Amino acid sequence: MKAEIITIGDELLIGQTIDTNSAWIGAELSRLGFEVTQITSIPDRRERILKMLNEVTGRCDVVLITGGLGPTSDDITKQTLCEFFNTTLITNQEVLGMIELMFQRRNLPMNENNRRQADVPASCRVLFNATGTAPGMWFEKGGTIFISMPGVPLEMKYIMKEHVLPELGKRFRSRIILHKNIMTYGTYEAKLAELLEVFESQLPSNIKLAYLPSLGIIKLRLTASGNNQNELSRQINEQVQKLYKTIPQYIYGEDEETMEMAVGRILKEKKLTVCTAESCTGGMIAHLITSVPGSSAYYKGSVIAYDNSVKTDILKVKKSTLNKYGAVSREVVEEMAQGALYIMNCNIAVATTGIAGPDGGSPAKPVGTLWIAVASANGIKSEKYQFIHDRETNIKHFSTAALNMLRLAAVSE
Amino acid sequence: MKAEIITIGDELLIGQTIDTNSAWIGAELSRLGFEVTQITSIPDRRERILKMLNEVTGRCDVVLITGGLGPTSDDITKQTLCEFFNTTLITNQEVLGMIELMFQRRNLPMNENNRRQADVPASCRVLFNATGTAPGMWFEKGGTIFISMPGVPLEMKYIMKEHVLPELGKRFRSRIILHKNIMTYGTYEAKLAELLEVFESQLPSNIKLAYLPSLGIIKLRLTASGNNQNELSRQINEQVQKLYKTIPQYIYGEDEETMEMAVGRILKEKKLTVCTAESCTGGMIAHLITSVPGSSAYYKGSVIAYDNSVKTDILKVKKSTLNKYGAVSREVVEEMAQGALYIMNCNIAVATTGIAGPDGGSPAKPVGTLWIAVASANGIKSEKYQFIHDRETNIKHFSTAALNMLRLAAVSE
Repeated sequence: MKAEIITIGDELLIGQTIDTNSAWIGAELSRLGFEVTQITSIPDRRERILKMLNEVTGRCDVVLITGGLGPTSDDITKQTLCEFFNTTLITNQEVLGMIELMFQRRNLPMNENNRRQADVPASCRVLFNATGTAPGMWFEKGGTIFISMPGVPLEMKYIMKEHVLPELGKRFRSRIILHKNIMTYGTYEAKLAELLEVFESQLPSNIKLAYLPSLGIIKLRLTASGNNQNELSRQINEQVQKLYKTIPQYIYGEDEETMEMAVGRILKEKKLTVCTAESCTGGMIAHLITSVPGSSAYYKGSVIAYDNSVKTDILKVKKSTLNKYGAVSREVVEEMAQGALYIMNCNIAVATTGIAGPDGGSPAKPVGTLWIAVASANGIKSEKYQFIHDRETNIKHFSTAALNMLRLAAVSE
Repeated sequence: MKAEIITIGDELLIGQTIDTNSAWIGAELSRLGFEVTQITSIPDRRERILKMLNEVTGRCDVVLITGGLGPTSDDITKQTLCEFFNTTLITNQEVLGMIELMFQRRNLPMNENNRRQADVPASCRVLFNATGTAPGMWFEKGGTIFISMPGVPLEMKYIMKEHVLPELGKRFRSRIILHKNIMTYGTYEAKLAELLEVFESQLPSNIKLAYLPSLGIIKLRLTASGNNQNELSRQINEQVQKLYKTIPQYIYGEDEETMEMAVGRILKEKKLTVCTAESCTGGMIAHLITSVPGSSAYYKGSVIAYDNSVKTDILKVKKSTLNKYGAVSREVVEEMAQGALYIMNCNIAVATTGIAGPDGGSPAKPVGTLWIAVASANGIKSEKYQFIHDRETNIKHFSTAALNMLRLAAVSE
């Protein structure tokens, strides 16, 4: 039960667009038990598309294709599919009606380019798209199913969820593959690998462990394959319990839980409210916390004190503290956290001040220096961190470190 | 002058990791005049790696390979490269010394896994990596150059910038390809295509136009190819001027300029300061503004007023206004902007209130409703928007719309 993904578009090859579709499709297909054997990105060129379609025919059971279905002249996937499947374009009245309705509802004028979106290869099954003007298309040839979808992630996901995944789930019954992720923070890959050497060596042959590091977080992925769902669940659970015994200090969550989701889960459980005061992280912590649906239950707000005047005027940091210790100091970050706690009247406040770069560093306080403070009725705790990345990456690392301190504070509240 | 990119790692195929390396490498290679003809992601499997290496040999001039070089047992790229190039692993003393120094400096213990990172295929040229423990490797075979690098983006980029790009630039002289992007906001793809129909039809045959939409922003990419750099520059500039005449109302910037960069550019030019007051965008606008290096020159800070108490207590929104019109209203967003302008003492303040979803919508104010206000000494302007996406996408659209209103306000200050 093999699947491949083909993404079409010059913008992918010249790096103007990052292909996020393949990862999403790969995850969904894996969940259905498919083995995704290859992802290939090719340009909007007739001969390249034809060559690729020929290559995959018979090599796998399903091919998911995205891109090249836009209304503009650089998109040629539809015509090329017609050529490959030896068919012609016809206007699909249902799709045309939907496009007309869409433009009416948004009160936008419709042009010939929009209308042409309703032309589909005569031999395909049309997969209705309620989120955009390009429908999905389902073909079969030489024992392989070909599914073509628009490259816009929202539209691709709609067609996948609505049509493709349910249909593939019905048509293919297979060897079961279970994944389980354990999310860790606070150490590095080689160190974890050392701590887990004995754990790895005792894993049953049908279970594999992978390390997936990303911005300080290392995801440990256990993959089990077999025929019995219950037995696989039992096996995975057994190994997960061993992981909790071996590295308890590094595990913050499971599955796809982000640090901000873990923070939200604990705050909700404990019925605690939180606020933030950010300098160098510039709103990233607030953004991460509020990216979690339902965060209004525990998150009150933030003061982004980028300028020192905001630190003194709103957060009530003392001018003398700023003058004596500088903005990036334990003293200032603690006053920021205490100020936020007071003015926003929460159970916990977390504050950051540091130097994200590229400018602003000094020998004593180089780029990447970060101070975090967490304040609550129980007192205040502050810590210094040192990172070594570019501005964007530093801001992400800073925010994750602050969220982790907030998480630990919430656990012990 | 063809190049291909191969990314290796099970995590890419099962969708645990989004491949961002390929886009970055693709952009850099295009800049050097390479045509990137294919990007392929394959699993950490010996036979698949060997098959892929065989396929590309002789098919292109350069192959950039990332991934599978980590210290853990699931990474097998290095051994497989040895097999393909018929060589064996030897310890590179220089790399070993660097790894030892790295661990000393960070004051971390070093283990056997770390030490093995210094083992490299005897026949490769080692590309020193100052940002991590896995060096890059340069091989040649059958007229093709093979470059293997770690999958960690920071490390890959270091090796590319330090070794690979300068070397490739020297070795290959070629047909020149120039790209120019014009960044637009405020309309949709089919509409732009209609407005640009005449423009497209008059383009010289060596210039191509592509539409690259992403979250409300449509990048228009002009690609020119030829032999004379000056002539190509002149041709592109001529077409760019025509674009400015045809769709002036939608163009906000050029090249890779994001909306937040455009905002920063204008604020700096005009020596204006700005602050924000965010409800539904939860810090995203602040984060975007401060993601631009040097933003402290014009950005003072923000109040994230997620909870109504923060709107009243800090931003001085009147309780009666909240009660009468509700938090998502013109009246509240205007008081938020005015409050922010006053307490943070800036030239311009922008405020948002809305419903990002998935919950909180009503028939009168559905999910996706957004109010934006921009206040300055010149007065206040507010507008209502309606989006139709999921929480994450709504927050992004909300923020871009607010930044665009801020940009227009700054232009007319």
